[in-house]
Amino acid sequence: MLKVALIGATGAVGQEFVLALNKHPWFELTAVVSSSRSAGKKYLDSLRDPASAILRWHSRNEVPEYVRDMMVSTVDHIKPDSFDLVFTALESDDALKIEPNFAKSVPVISTAAAFRYENDVPILIPGINEEHIDLLNVQRKQRKWEGFICPLPNCTTTGLVITLKPIMESAGLRSVIMTSMQAISGAGRSPGVVALDILDNVIPYIPKEEEKVQVETKKILGKLDKDSISPDALKVSCTCTRVPVLDGHTESVFVETEKSLEPDEVKQLMVNFSDSVTIRGLPSAPRDYIVVHDDPTRPQPRIDREINDGMTTVVGRLRKDSVFDHGIKYVLLSHNEKMGSAKGAVLMAELLKDKGIL
Amino acid sequence: MLKVALIGATGAVGQEFVLALNKHPWFELTAVVSSSRSAGKKYLDSLRDPASAILRWHSRNEVPEYVRDMMVSTVDHIKPDSFDLVFTALESDDALKIEPNFAKSVPVISTAAAFRYENDVPILIPGINEEHIDLLNVQRKQRKWEGFICPLPNCTTTGLVITLKPIMESAGLRSVIMTSMQAISGAGRSPGVVALDILDNVIPYIPKEEEKVQVETKKILGKLDKDSISPDALKVSCTCTRVPVLDGHTESVFVETEKSLEPDEVKQLMVNFSDSVTIRGLPSAPRDYIVVHDDPTRPQPRIDREINDGMTTVVGRLRKDSVFDHGIKYVLLSHNEKMGSAKGAVLMAELLKDKGIL
Amino acid sequence: MLKVALIGATGAVGQEFVLALNKHPWFELTAVVSSSRSAGKKYLDSLRDPASAILRWHSRNEVPEYVRDMMVSTVDHIKPDSFDLVFTALESDDALKIEPNFAKSVPVISTAAAFRYENDVPILIPGINEEHIDLLNVQRKQRKWEGFICPLPNCTTTGLVITLKPIMESAGLRSVIMTSMQAISGAGRSPGVVALDILDNVIPYIPKEEEKVQVETKKILGKLDKDSISPDALKVSCTCTRVPVLDGHTESVFVETEKSLEPDEVKQLMVNFSDSVTIRGLPSAPRDYIVVHDDPTRPQPRIDREINDGMTTVVGRLRKDSVFDHGIKYVLLSHNEKMGSAKGAVLMAELLKDKGIL
Amino acid sequence: MLKVALIGATGAVGQEFVLALNKHPWFELTAVVSSSRSAGKKYLDSLRDPASAILRWHSRNEVPEYVRDMMVSTVDHIKPDSFDLVFTALESDDALKIEPNFAKSVPVISTAAAFRYENDVPILIPGINEEHIDLLNVQRKQRKWEGFICPLPNCTTTGLVITLKPIMESAGLRSVIMTSMQAISGAGRSPGVVALDILDNVIPYIPKEEEKVQVETKKILGKLDKDSISPDALKVSCTCTRVPVLDGHTESVFVETEKSLEPDEVKQLMVNFSDSVTIRGLPSAPRDYIVVHDDPTRPQPRIDREINDGMTTVVGRLRKDSVFDHGIKYVLLSHNEKMGSAKGAVLMAELLKDKGIL
Repeated sequence: MLKVALIGATGAVGQEFVLALNKHPWFELTAVVSSSRSAGKKYLDSLRDPASAILRWHSRNEVPEYVRDMMVSTVDHIKPDSFDLVFTALESDDALKIEPNFAKSVPVISTAAAFRYENDVPILIPGINEEHIDLLNVQRKQRKWEGFICPLPNCTTTGLVITLKPIMESAGLRSVIMTSMQAISGAGRSPGVVALDILDNVIPYIPKEEEKVQVETKKILGKLDKDSISPDALKVSCTCTRVPVLDGHTESVFVETEKSLEPDEVKQLMVNFSDSVTIRGLPSAPRDYIVVHDDPTRPQPRIDREINDGMTTVVGRLRKDSVFDHGIKYVLLSHNEKMGSAKGAVLMAELLKDKGIL
Repeated sequence: MLKVALIGATGAVGQEFVLALNKHPWFELTAVVSSSRSAGKKYLDSLRDPASAILRWHSRNEVPEYVRDMMVSTVDHIKPDSFDLVFTALESDDALKIEPNFAKSVPVISTAAAFRYENDVPILIPGINEEHIDLLNVQRKQRKWEGFICPLPNCTTTGLVITLKPIMESAGLRSVIMTSMQAISGAGRSPGVVALDILDNVIPYIPKEEEKVQVETKKILGKLDKDSISPDALKVSCTCTRVPVLDGHTESVFVETEKSLEPDEVKQLMVNFSDSVTIRGLPSAPRDYIVVHDDPTRPQPRIDREINDGMTTVVGRLRKDSVFDHGIKYVLLSHNEKMGSAKGAVLMAELLKDKGIL
Repeated sequence: MLKVALIGATGAVGQEFVLALNKHPWFELTAVVSSSRSAGKKYLDSLRDPASAILRWHSRNEVPEYVRDMMVSTVDHIKPDSFDLVFTALESDDALKIEPNFAKSVPVISTAAAFRYENDVPILIPGINEEHIDLLNVQRKQRKWEGFICPLPNCTTTGLVITLKPIMESAGLRSVIMTSMQAISGAGRSPGVVALDILDNVIPYIPKEEEKVQVETKKILGKLDKDSISPDALKVSCTCTRVPVLDGHTESVFVETEKSLEPDEVKQLMVNFSDSVTIRGLPSAPRDYIVVHDDPTRPQPRIDREINDGMTTVVGRLRKDSVFDHGIKYVLLSHNEKMGSAKGAVLMAELLKDKGIL
Repeated sequence: MLKVALIGATGAVGQEFVLALNKHPWFELTAVVSSSRSAGKKYLDSLRDPASAILRWHSRNEVPEYVRDMMVSTVDHIKPDSFDLVFTALESDDALKIEPNFAKSVPVISTAAAFRYENDVPILIPGINEEHIDLLNVQRKQRKWEGFICPLPNCTTTGLVITLKPIMESAGLRSVIMTSMQAISGAGRSPGVVALDILDNVIPYIPKEEEKVQVETKKILGKLDKDSISPDALKVSCTCTRVPVLDGHTESVFVETEKSLEPDEVKQLMVNFSDSVTIRGLPSAPRDYIVVHDDPTRPQPRIDREINDGMTTVVGRLRKDSVFDHGIKYVLLSHNEKMGSAKGAVLMAELLKDKGIL
């Protein structure tokens, strides 16, 4: 068993890590780390909001037994070299300060944006761009670290790239136009989205989100040239909105390909990709990497988000697009707190261990 | 005062007509017409659901006094020639049968899709394509009717075309990609959207909606050549979804223009268009035809839908698009039951009367 | 395996029966029966709404494989004596006509109100009033039926009675005042609650609901005297409302007891009752019959409704009441479509089989 | 015109004050005061959330012109004696420190709980307990202040007491059992209720709320004896819950009276009370103080909360209660941010000025 620390353990993403690591066959959570406000409390007690008395635990599943009585530490009170692996679920500003301190001695798998855009840092999605893993060794060497920082993309990027990849391999990608309808859990929990802002409403703006998706998509689909990644030439343009949905990001996607494809062919490409995806067999890998519905009313976030415990990207409404010469359009759903975040990070760790990098 | 009949008076759109005609300076509602189930009841009584006892009246405003005790008739019990004008708020199948019977003797302004795609029928948006009004006379002659059928577009088309028109006039339009997040009131009230389907959910499909928007946009922006309209060459592609919002359709729009435009220029074009729009001064015309926000968090349906009693199209998030050579993207909000439906139809009637067609 | 028919198989409650009978160790569903509109279709196809194309399947769990291709019959096309047991999920009017036809030859377990208030019909909650089962034999004899009609209570009654029973046994009940906040799934699905009625709203009235709860509570807690039940003398008064919650009825309860009880004692009574409830060990029985929270923010419907697959009644906020001389108040949550309906009916069937009545 | 300061001007209640004082005929807002975080900014700018860029302005009405460019001060930078009147919209802890400093020289009308339970402080509802106004003079004398602190009750108390008062006058009150379904705006806006906590949910607990309602109801309905108020002997017990509703508290009320009353009589008492209420004619007084519906589906918060700009208490479902010997039950709706808070405070100020106390 690898010894694992979780930094940012009490927030929304941290909670999903706690669930994803419950009874994990390879990883043992030995430290839950949070801000000084929570430190010194038992994990369960640290979740309670002082004003409203509400337990800020988001999942329908109870707080797992194994973590309830673990004492919450601060980053200053744990030693990096007591761990084989560190997961972080931090805001970008905190990640910028904290992650390098750990990466000096131990691998850090991060859900934060802080290092995603550095030259020697790949943005990894398990099953999509394993050839970029080599950049972690470049990073190690260049920074003279024993560990490394290995970030996942923004949760809105994940489902988009997973569905683009099989199309790209077969027909090439020219451009992507995407409008997202994102769940409120994507904004975290302290306070995250305020109820008075979102009930009976759509908020047409999420700060920095569109830039992240645009840059990350091109980097993840880019080519590793020795010691940096050349972003793909693909053009990406998006508008990101928030809707009154608890979990699951829905995205309406319009794709221009180099070669013409029929909707049925795209479906087949996605299904084939799903059937032969590299991560099959890892402990957190879903039965289906991508599911494609013929039913025009799917995917729906409330119905489809928990399929395979939130690790499947669900696609529907595959149609010809009439604007691009070779155009395809579809709707996708990706669970922003599972595949798009904590559980995706655990799957990433499994892949790195499987490849001997951990 | 023109004597007016309202067919389909008890549904969601019918109710908005009842509100829009309350104390109208030019039009007097003298007949409320509905299905045989409601006929013979007072208007107020006809709105009550027999099973749940709920008054199926959607507006925050009370049922206006003037209509409460009016007896509901069926189409078989009123004479077309008792009216100067007929408004219809019917499902397409019913409109197909009922509207021609009335149009033989009296002008019919319709919110239904039934006749929108006929050669001698324009689709009119007040303030946008008045030059198409002449086609009503062609229709009269060809069909040997004393009246005519004058349909409005689908409520999702309205806001899109209103925002495209000023761009088109100045820079030309090549293509439009649009994703809508539509309100539940757009599906009507009997039963319309079922609560169990939409709470904490997005439904990524609205039957026939996308085809309507695509065809109607090109027709409304097309050219009248003698006795028919040549649709504009513009390419339009959309995905229409339903979100848990009571009123107000939000649309995420990506536009390719012929000439390059900066976001600031587009804003100025929209503001100028709004300031000089033809319908200014009509009783139901809004103070602002289009409002453009610099605030990136606007438009929001709950906050912006009732501005100028729902007759204003609200635009925000004007930005360069990075996919098209000359690309602009923005978010718009249009009130689907006001400007996009009943009150838009009343404004249309005012325009026709002002021009002497009624 | 007992052969089982399900009448009313396509509605909200019918769907829960389909789930509850999936891989059941004792019962095999051999006929799914619905109205003529659905008859002749495969079960899966019969669930699709013709207008919106939405699959009217409420559960997060997929439609079970075993039932997808079963052909839907009408009541006229099945023979009562082909079954060992019939479950019905019907509106009261239909139940009144259909249930006796089947009860002549086969036991009928019903979720409808049609026969609940007959003298020779008990209203049974598994674990609460098994001594009333004898009345089924009286009914058989009096009506000269081979089967019987065995109804469950209204879903709002179930949780209330389950929490009152342990208090009654120990301290006697004088009166109960209850305000419910009921989920929208309690109104079924065709159309059930219309989204425009309930979003951002509370509806303070559910037709006939309060009368049902008041009468049923007294009957279930009453005494069987030979061939009829004397309702308990307990006074019950309630107000039933609908809130924007998908599943799970929340009830705010104020109880006057004969003997004084402290909140801690009530908690202990409930826990003890739960630990020794008669249904323990039956296939559909929950691990906990009642759970009592000390956390003042519980129960919450979204968090607590699925505990033990919706078969547990969850209690919280146990406090002294200051109006009654011996008063206790609390909040309870009961899953209206699981313990309060279909799965409760299956549990009832298990109990009857266990006792040799089936 | 009286010069008025508003302390706590940027929060949810503060915003309602800003609206209520817009174009007020008697009061001129000359200072908007908030925490140091907002100080030095224009009022409009101070409302914007730094992280999400959302303008934290709750009302459908725009921020009034008159206040947009006013500079926000802190309490340390304004002089109490520059004002004729101070409104406060503060959390209790802040009120405890700030209000006395101002009350030394100027009347303070407060929405906070800090001083409500002091012996020399009345809790005033305009139209209900004007005879308690005399206690303000006692307070002045005892504390040697030129001003006074005049608090309104908790927003959940307001509607309850307004509906109890006419019953009490005619039939006497013995006990009240109440369950509230409270709107999310009642929890304020920074952050108030978190969306992840309340969507598809009910929270059965609001800290301290029940105690407030129980104590305040008895004090407001009590008798002023020289220099303190003897609370009424009425027994009050309640359970307060939060539901996914934007504005408007719904309360389910069960009342035991001394004399028996029929529902029709209660209706008549409420209507008569409403018709002759003392505040009629004041600028912020509603056309109807109480509206009683016969329609069993009313009141509904979304439909009824804005009647008379939120200053009317709406009652429905008046029925006999079957638990108490002389029992009545009903449902009420009160706008928590209008009559129950800021606009109620402005109405209170009008009443005090009308009586010459200001």
